[in-house]
Amino acid sequence: MSQGPPLPPLEQTVPEVVVQRLPQYVRVLGALVREEVEVVSSHQLGERLQTTPAQIRKDLSYFGRFGKQGRGYSVGNLQRQLKDILGLSRQWNVGLVGVGRLGLAILSYPGFAPEGFRIVAAFDADPTQVGQNIGGVGVYAMDDLARMVQEMDISIGVVAVPGMHAQQVVDRLVECGVRAILNYAPTSPQTHEGVRIRNIDPVLSLQSMTYYLMGPERGENGQSQE
Amino acid sequence: MSQGPPLPPLEQTVPEVVVQRLPQYVRVLGALVREEVEVVSSHQLGERLQTTPAQIRKDLSYFGRFGKQGRGYSVGNLQRQLKDILGLSRQWNVGLVGVGRLGLAILSYPGFAPEGFRIVAAFDADPTQVGQNIGGVGVYAMDDLARMVQEMDISIGVVAVPGMHAQQVVDRLVECGVRAILNYAPTSPQTHEGVRIRNIDPVLSLQSMTYYLMGPERGENGQSQE
Repeated sequence: MSQGPPLPPLEQTVPEVVVQRLPQYVRVLGALVREEVEVVSSHQLGERLQTTPAQIRKDLSYFGRFGKQGRGYSVGNLQRQLKDILGLSRQWNVGLVGVGRLGLAILSYPGFAPEGFRIVAAFDADPTQVGQNIGGVGVYAMDDLARMVQEMDISIGVVAVPGMHAQQVVDRLVECGVRAILNYAPTSPQTHEGVRIRNIDPVLSLQSMTYYLMGPERGENGQSQE
Repeated sequence: MSQGPPLPPLEQTVPEVVVQRLPQYVRVLGALVREEVEVVSSHQLGERLQTTPAQIRKDLSYFGRFGKQGRGYSVGNLQRQLKDILGLSRQWNVGLVGVGRLGLAILSYPGFAPEGFRIVAAFDADPTQVGQNIGGVGVYAMDDLARMVQEMDISIGVVAVPGMHAQQVVDRLVECGVRAILNYAPTSPQTHEGVRIRNIDPVLSLQSMTYYLMGPERGENGQSQE
């Protein structure tokens, strides 16, 4: 499926936390490409990513040898290879379940398409929503889910339904063959074997900031991706 | 400001990654309370949080002594103390900037209030939006921001404006004294000294799943909070 060079052999299972960090590496490398930086050290990468050079080297070591000792990494080369490894060199078709307020906001979110994530169909349990075309995306009945996942080659499901329906929708998506789910409902659905779920959880983000509001001595500088 | 017992003295700066993990500890402890579990070991906590017992003990050691060697932690006690440390035993007033689709979805998000985050005012640059009352929350002009932050004791700003305006809105919030910002715009605004920003970044979440869609051997089980 990759459009780049063949992937290096995976000699061991890569820890999930490493896979979760790599998209941030790709993003920082993209910024360096735009700044026309050609070579970067693990020290410099560590500074940009607020981690140690040793952590960078260890994370990358799971995927092969990218740099020469003491020479740093080729920015463009490392970016391309990480994108291939992560599957970011291609387009992924996404199905959205739920076209309420949250679903509409997701449909109009401008950040997905430039990164290769294309919402190709939406689904809703409410028959009055079905048949709409929202900015070029058709709204289908839940009964059409299995067929549309096949026909439109949908690999990723986005869940934007009320919390009480989230588990059921996740189960339906998995039954239909979807193995990656981004959940916006304010619950953490149980996962299935071989299926990835990421929860968009703004409360955890808020709860990690209030600590710094409790006393002035706690408020150094900080920004992070959630 | 804490409503619980006095905080233990902070003998050293707590790494930000530790502060970011603690809300997940609190959540797991809350689940244990509901399950009527009274004592939990670092081993059991580690299993629930997909981390090592040593990591749990190290993280908690920044905040004092919570358990007795070999005895485990008192679930209720640890939960209460962590909530006090994180500032989760009280209510925080939140100001929302931007009442477009995304802003409306945030206003109707049911997950904030039960956790003590109350959106008390909304702001928009569009004069036709100003003066509305959306589910009990008034919409004010950006010129009213400084006054309302004072009057309504707003500690946290939520940014739901187009990416091109996000930096400017963050800067305005900081000028008005807001020191914790949850950013939904698809950009990473530059931070200010003493101010925390968390970015809701669904693209990073998607990009950390596609790896597992690239080959069947990569698809073990997994779920995580972003």
